[in-house]
Amino acid sequence: MTHTPDAAVPVQQQEREADVVRQVLRSFEACTDPRLRQVMQSLVHHLHAFVREVRLTEAEWSEGIDFLTRAGHITDERRQEFILLSDVLGVSMQTVAVNNEAYGGATEATVFGPFFVDNSPEIAQGGDLSFGAAGEPCWVEGTVTDADGKPVAGARIEVWEADEDGFYDTQYGDDRLAARAHLFTDADGGYRFWALTPTPYPIPHDGPVGALLAATGRSPMRASHLHFMVTAPALRTLVTHIFVDGDELLDRDAVFGVKESLVKSFDTQPPGTATPDGRDLHGRSWSRVRFDIMLAPDGT
Amino acid sequence: MTHTPDAAVPVQQQEREADVVRQVLRSFEACTDPRLRQVMQSLVHHLHAFVREVRLTEAEWSEGIDFLTRAGHITDERRQEFILLSDVLGVSMQTVAVNNEAYGGATEATVFGPFFVDNSPEIAQGGDLSFGAAGEPCWVEGTVTDADGKPVAGARIEVWEADEDGFYDTQYGDDRLAARAHLFTDADGGYRFWALTPTPYPIPHDGPVGALLAATGRSPMRASHLHFMVTAPALRTLVTHIFVDGDELLDRDAVFGVKESLVKSFDTQPPGTATPDGRDLHGRSWSRVRFDIMLAPDGT
Repeated sequence: MTHTPDAAVPVQQQEREADVVRQVLRSFEACTDPRLRQVMQSLVHHLHAFVREVRLTEAEWSEGIDFLTRAGHITDERRQEFILLSDVLGVSMQTVAVNNEAYGGATEATVFGPFFVDNSPEIAQGGDLSFGAAGEPCWVEGTVTDADGKPVAGARIEVWEADEDGFYDTQYGDDRLAARAHLFTDADGGYRFWALTPTPYPIPHDGPVGALLAATGRSPMRASHLHFMVTAPALRTLVTHIFVDGDELLDRDAVFGVKESLVKSFDTQPPGTATPDGRDLHGRSWSRVRFDIMLAPDGT
Repeated sequence: MTHTPDAAVPVQQQEREADVVRQVLRSFEACTDPRLRQVMQSLVHHLHAFVREVRLTEAEWSEGIDFLTRAGHITDERRQEFILLSDVLGVSMQTVAVNNEAYGGATEATVFGPFFVDNSPEIAQGGDLSFGAAGEPCWVEGTVTDADGKPVAGARIEVWEADEDGFYDTQYGDDRLAARAHLFTDADGGYRFWALTPTPYPIPHDGPVGALLAATGRSPMRASHLHFMVTAPALRTLVTHIFVDGDELLDRDAVFGVKESLVKSFDTQPPGTATPDGRDLHGRSWSRVRFDIMLAPDGT
């Protein structure tokens, strides 16, 4: 991949700019780690192509430095502005695409997002992951199979989501764990649990990434979704979401996470409808969704 | 400029990845500022081409996020890791190249660097900018002319440099101002002052950028140099350095700032040699250099 010269730039000037690229590429030749050399040289190549293509002004370069500085300063243990930046530029989703090539009918992956934590509570089959988080109850069920359709017993399913106010537990600034849990599939690969009906929410947009979205006329809203991470021996780990059919945000998710195969029908049940496990919801409405998961073989 | 497909990636997979790029590009279509839209779409295009070309792994993506986070956290009012990053990737020098197209015999520009401050003391012609900074005295003189060779009277010349220990005043963590000053050309466009003979020094390399240089087998050393910024009405502002002829670092400057036309002869004078202005250097050696500056017309 080479830089396409801009016809408006004199040939001698193009040569000067190409010489800067060559000097920088050469500086990485002494790198003894071939992969690191490849990554850095490719990054240099594409960054320079960007600067040359748009004829980046010095003021714009300064704005870029300021942007990264502000992103660095708002980032802490609870807030990760660089992941948000990667997300809204689609770089996260592209990385997912590159690393999760489609395998037959295996369930598709999507972005991990910044809200996973690794100490979620375990729930039993039919358990409730809300732990006090507000929202409409949602019955989620399905099976986990391998690519041959064989049930996978004992697969670990991590699930996490925002509450109906649009916040994950980690965003409250206390140590609560809520609207997240993990469980294991039964002998038939089946699983079922109570979650909250997903609702749309904005990514954190009070920082530089939010300002970028506003300046470019983009919305910070994410389509409603429920996060899944499914792991089982000898099978490719699946990091994905399911989305809510009919959500008007499906075609303009702020982080480009939506894939058609991941849009599921969340069927609203009027108050009083009998629940699958006989749970008494005291006259509240609830919803139900089925999500059958097919895992690709490991190493694919 | 398009992404060159990797022959090893199946066509269907290439199509999936191209679709992610298209979605992200489309998200910026609503941007009402055409320049911002252009910059963001080009950035997206090139970042995605990078991710796809190197088949960036999810672990490498995480390392990138961590790198930026560490860079953000080490950056403060005195330390600017993102400028260092831009410098060592040659992005700063490329931006300079794009914005300072050669104009006839006008003096070439080079990187600004992170050490300029806008409250340097003024010195008279023949004054000394060291203000107590350690180093060998260096007599610097020259003229400032426009592209027709006409002397420019009253041009403002800002000069700054590291001391012989390799530190700028701002790196000491106190409020000293030293080894920097500004002065104005006389009626004939001439200027002359005492500085310090430039010596090589490393860019700050105790942070993530230093770690990157170490991992890739690159040196953090900059070729010895003296910074200039020259401003005059109706003429293009010149930000540049002069480098020391014979410096062994000229061909491997950490930030790619060296241009042949900016390498000057700094002639060492044995102790006792008479100084141009009769200054008594108490038996110390000194050096002298001539730097004639030609400014391009404004707007070129």
